[in-house]
Amino acid sequence: MSRAIATVCLSGTLEEKLHAASAAGFDAVELFENDLIGSPLRPGEVRRLAAELGLEIALYQPFRDFEAMPEPPFARAEAKFAVMEELGAETILVCSNVSPAAIDDDALAAEQLHGLAERAAGHGIRIAYEALAWGRHVNTFDHAWRIVDLADHPALGTCLDSFHILSRGSDPAGIRAIPGEKIFFLQLADAPFMVMDVLQWSRHYRCFPGQGGLDVAAVVRAARAAGYRGPLSLEVFNDVFRAADPERMAVDAMRSLLILEDELPPPAALDGYAFVELGLDSTCAPETEATLEALGFTHTGQHRSKPVQLWEQGDARVVVNRGEAPGKPRVVALAFETPDPEAAVARAEALQAPVLPERRRPDEAALRSILAPDGTSVIFCRAWHHDFLPVASPSPGALRAIDHLALSQPFDYFDEAALFYRSVLGLSAHESQELAAPDGLIRSRAVGDVERRVRLALNVPLVAAGTATELQHIAFACDDALAAAHRCAEAGVPLLRISDNYYDDLAARTKLSDERIETLREARVLYDADERGELLHFFTEVVGDRLFFEVLERRGGYDGYGAANSAVRLGAQRAHTTGPAAASRGAAAA
Amino acid sequence: MSRAIATVCLSGTLEEKLHAASAAGFDAVELFENDLIGSPLRPGEVRRLAAELGLEIALYQPFRDFEAMPEPPFARAEAKFAVMEELGAETILVCSNVSPAAIDDDALAAEQLHGLAERAAGHGIRIAYEALAWGRHVNTFDHAWRIVDLADHPALGTCLDSFHILSRGSDPAGIRAIPGEKIFFLQLADAPFMVMDVLQWSRHYRCFPGQGGLDVAAVVRAARAAGYRGPLSLEVFNDVFRAADPERMAVDAMRSLLILEDELPPPAALDGYAFVELGLDSTCAPETEATLEALGFTHTGQHRSKPVQLWEQGDARVVVNRGEAPGKPRVVALAFETPDPEAAVARAEALQAPVLPERRRPDEAALRSILAPDGTSVIFCRAWHHDFLPVASPSPGALRAIDHLALSQPFDYFDEAALFYRSVLGLSAHESQELAAPDGLIRSRAVGDVERRVRLALNVPLVAAGTATELQHIAFACDDALAAAHRCAEAGVPLLRISDNYYDDLAARTKLSDERIETLREARVLYDADERGELLHFFTEVVGDRLFFEVLERRGGYDGYGAANSAVRLGAQRAHTTGPAAASRGAAAA
Repeated sequence: MSRAIATVCLSGTLEEKLHAASAAGFDAVELFENDLIGSPLRPGEVRRLAAELGLEIALYQPFRDFEAMPEPPFARAEAKFAVMEELGAETILVCSNVSPAAIDDDALAAEQLHGLAERAAGHGIRIAYEALAWGRHVNTFDHAWRIVDLADHPALGTCLDSFHILSRGSDPAGIRAIPGEKIFFLQLADAPFMVMDVLQWSRHYRCFPGQGGLDVAAVVRAARAAGYRGPLSLEVFNDVFRAADPERMAVDAMRSLLILEDELPPPAALDGYAFVELGLDSTCAPETEATLEALGFTHTGQHRSKPVQLWEQGDARVVVNRGEAPGKPRVVALAFETPDPEAAVARAEALQAPVLPERRRPDEAALRSILAPDGTSVIFCRAWHHDFLPVASPSPGALRAIDHLALSQPFDYFDEAALFYRSVLGLSAHESQELAAPDGLIRSRAVGDVERRVRLALNVPLVAAGTATELQHIAFACDDALAAAHRCAEAGVPLLRISDNYYDDLAARTKLSDERIETLREARVLYDADERGELLHFFTEVVGDRLFFEVLERRGGYDGYGAANSAVRLGAQRAHTTGPAAASRGAAAA
Repeated sequence: MSRAIATVCLSGTLEEKLHAASAAGFDAVELFENDLIGSPLRPGEVRRLAAELGLEIALYQPFRDFEAMPEPPFARAEAKFAVMEELGAETILVCSNVSPAAIDDDALAAEQLHGLAERAAGHGIRIAYEALAWGRHVNTFDHAWRIVDLADHPALGTCLDSFHILSRGSDPAGIRAIPGEKIFFLQLADAPFMVMDVLQWSRHYRCFPGQGGLDVAAVVRAARAAGYRGPLSLEVFNDVFRAADPERMAVDAMRSLLILEDELPPPAALDGYAFVELGLDSTCAPETEATLEALGFTHTGQHRSKPVQLWEQGDARVVVNRGEAPGKPRVVALAFETPDPEAAVARAEALQAPVLPERRRPDEAALRSILAPDGTSVIFCRAWHHDFLPVASPSPGALRAIDHLALSQPFDYFDEAALFYRSVLGLSAHESQELAAPDGLIRSRAVGDVERRVRLALNVPLVAAGTATELQHIAFACDDALAAAHRCAEAGVPLLRISDNYYDDLAARTKLSDERIETLREARVLYDADERGELLHFFTEVVGDRLFFEVLERRGGYDGYGAANSAVRLGAQRAHTTGPAAASRGAAAA
């Protein structure tokens, strides 16, 4: 099956859109009429450019408000058929009528569509009739198909759109009843669940399959079962995507189709985090290393060939790279243990992830890496520990392993990043939250594996207002958070000071005993509970305006990330730093 | 009546919020519980700080899910009463229950609220019970009042919220039936009309009165008529506001209350644009002036004391200020003719607009100016022409006057800017549109006076993705756009080239004759029509990546701004420039 993308999914001029679609490996495009109207390229020039780029113009769209009208606009259609002949486009999308003048009469609609198909056939053109979810009289796929069936013309078929079908709660299984050769086109879009006007939902919040909550795969399966063999074509309207880099978006779009088709190498088994690599410049390195040491980490190893140091405590491992250019400390790499690094990279490569060159000496471990959308390297490795020359033995400490990482994402590429990590690592979606920070709301989405050995939280400001703090943190698991907190305090870890008001409120809203509250308050440990268990956790202060550490204890299968405490944590961080928010605010006020 | 603002309206720490509210002149705050919980300040410290800043803590909020429960949380309430005593807050907001455990039983709700009020009274505290628009059983203001009435306790009253009332379509006139002394609190918020889940609408899209589409004033009038004498208090949840500078937001909030109270000096009569002042550096000045000259403008005057030049054509006047620091050309000032500049500035000052110092010699005209949120100066003047020494007489030209200005606004302050221009100039809202640019969607809001002598369009990207082009333009009115276009072409105006595809589509979708289409195509003039008349208009290319000019002819009362052609215009501008979008995109891809 060929892969197509609607030009309306991408930003830029028509030329830029076509180049981006071609570069990402698409075979075809849906040409959005307004992209043509606004282009200095005449239809014949568009045809030639598309051909040079290896792109078929699989659909011209949309043609609106045609059927069941007192006077259907045949002349307008004829003008568009002429344009399509110049374009070499053979199929036109006709959307179900939204005009108040439309008549609720299927027979009339069928008769007029038959007339349109007859005219189209004279130009070698086919009509694909689609039910918009907000069509005036026709708004379900089966209703559109009944009209097509009634009209009964070889140049008339139906166009299916996963958003229009699933947003109305229609069962895609009904697609199987449509003869495959009468499904002229299949448009795919996902969307997050939202309770809002379906037109607005469609126009602003669609996303690529796998980025939202709709079962797009079920639509594809049903269309295939019906015998559909045409393109899988993405048609997404999204406020953020249409303002973003079209080349990146096209790759992201292609990745969503590849996942949907599911003909990829399977994801490699991940045995948890091997290590997290921190990039530090000379300014922030001493403070960060002092914090690691106070947290109980020992500098245990020196890499044989690279200027990086290994710090260990239990199965929690942090690699420190002091060679960073001046700037804030940041997570430069996530490394995962896997039995087969090559297989992991093969999947990533099939998903168009940029594979980084392998730099190792023959005596070093297989260690393959790729680049994530946020600039973080993702490393797949096996038996890598030997690459570090031991310089000390780890002391027994309270921390056991890396529980999760939380990484701020660039605003334009949040959905891309979420799909990237999920698809490349074979993870599934965990919880999705909105967190209230003093500088605005933060959208947070967690992904992880079924066994909970790999957890990752991705964060992004809800609006890109320029003042948001871009924090990253590493959360370490322990078995006794209260003991760990006392130990850390004694060792001089700069612990984030949680307000007394938090504990007063905790006492008011939970049934915890006064004694337990006082124990938590004294240790500055935060508390949360879900239906399975409890979370006890605490935080360090923020190092270098970006990085901090969390220590957490999950009791009895607590599966969340402590979102209930995020506002308090973010508030405390804001109160104790003069972060970029305060700085930029000063600038704005000046 | 005192003026209050909820701390949740503003960004920052609790201390910053209180300082911002005080600086903007508020008398009181509603203290949002999470702001207290996240604060290192203990309740007694908050009380002292508020007192120092001249702020009463008029409401503690919210207390949730109390009434009509199998076991109402009295202990939680007692804990909050203790906090309120330390705060010196006498009223607590109790929202109608949203819990699935709530029982649909008004008598039970009343009985439990009576019990709560009895306990509260022992602490000198009052309960203000409010219907959330999405309350499980109680979601209208009159229902909440019936329960309060039934409970019949002196420490129990109702809280009214304009959003909850108006979002459900309730008639605020019903408020008059409530005894004024039983309305314990009045919360005000506006919102744009949206068809979406009311909870999401409320949590993300509220705005200050006058910025949305709800008749907040009707709620205030009804509450006053009922005898309410408590604070007018703003409670707004808005994704953008809560990420913006709290001091600016507090001033914006205060302005919305001042307009609502309507005790301001009346807006001055505006006799249209006196002139628009362009700030140019030495790089872009020659190109801009050459364009003005080719458009038919003459450099007619030199200011007596300032280094600025007057350019004129008919009643269209542009002042050129070549003294700008290096940068893009921009509109630095809008000047309006008014019989009473002092009165205009008095209103602006009452609305907390920054008034700029008056710099003029005794022999120069009265010319007073203020600063708009986007950094543009707004000048009010009378008999100012004499300040320019004549250097040439204007030639008769095709352009007649300034029709409108279109200014891109800073993302964080779009609602503020719209309210500022409307309130200070006494303008009303014209059309509101979403425009599709190649780099993303643009929200556009036009404001103007009733006589259409002053029109202003404010634009902002729908998402702040960093790549958006910030364009400004001046639209000049003429009586014959086709003749003007030919004249401009001959004079060498760099006219924006509109695609042939546009005219093909125009022919397909309108009933214009082939001859008329060809006339438009030849002149590269765009066409639009509304129910009243027709628009013919054309554009220059963009000067210095920001500024361009439009020439338009309104026929038969056409009242819009040519939004139907915006996508084509923006596409052509994008195709013909390597604007900041292309540049930043290159950087992002690199």
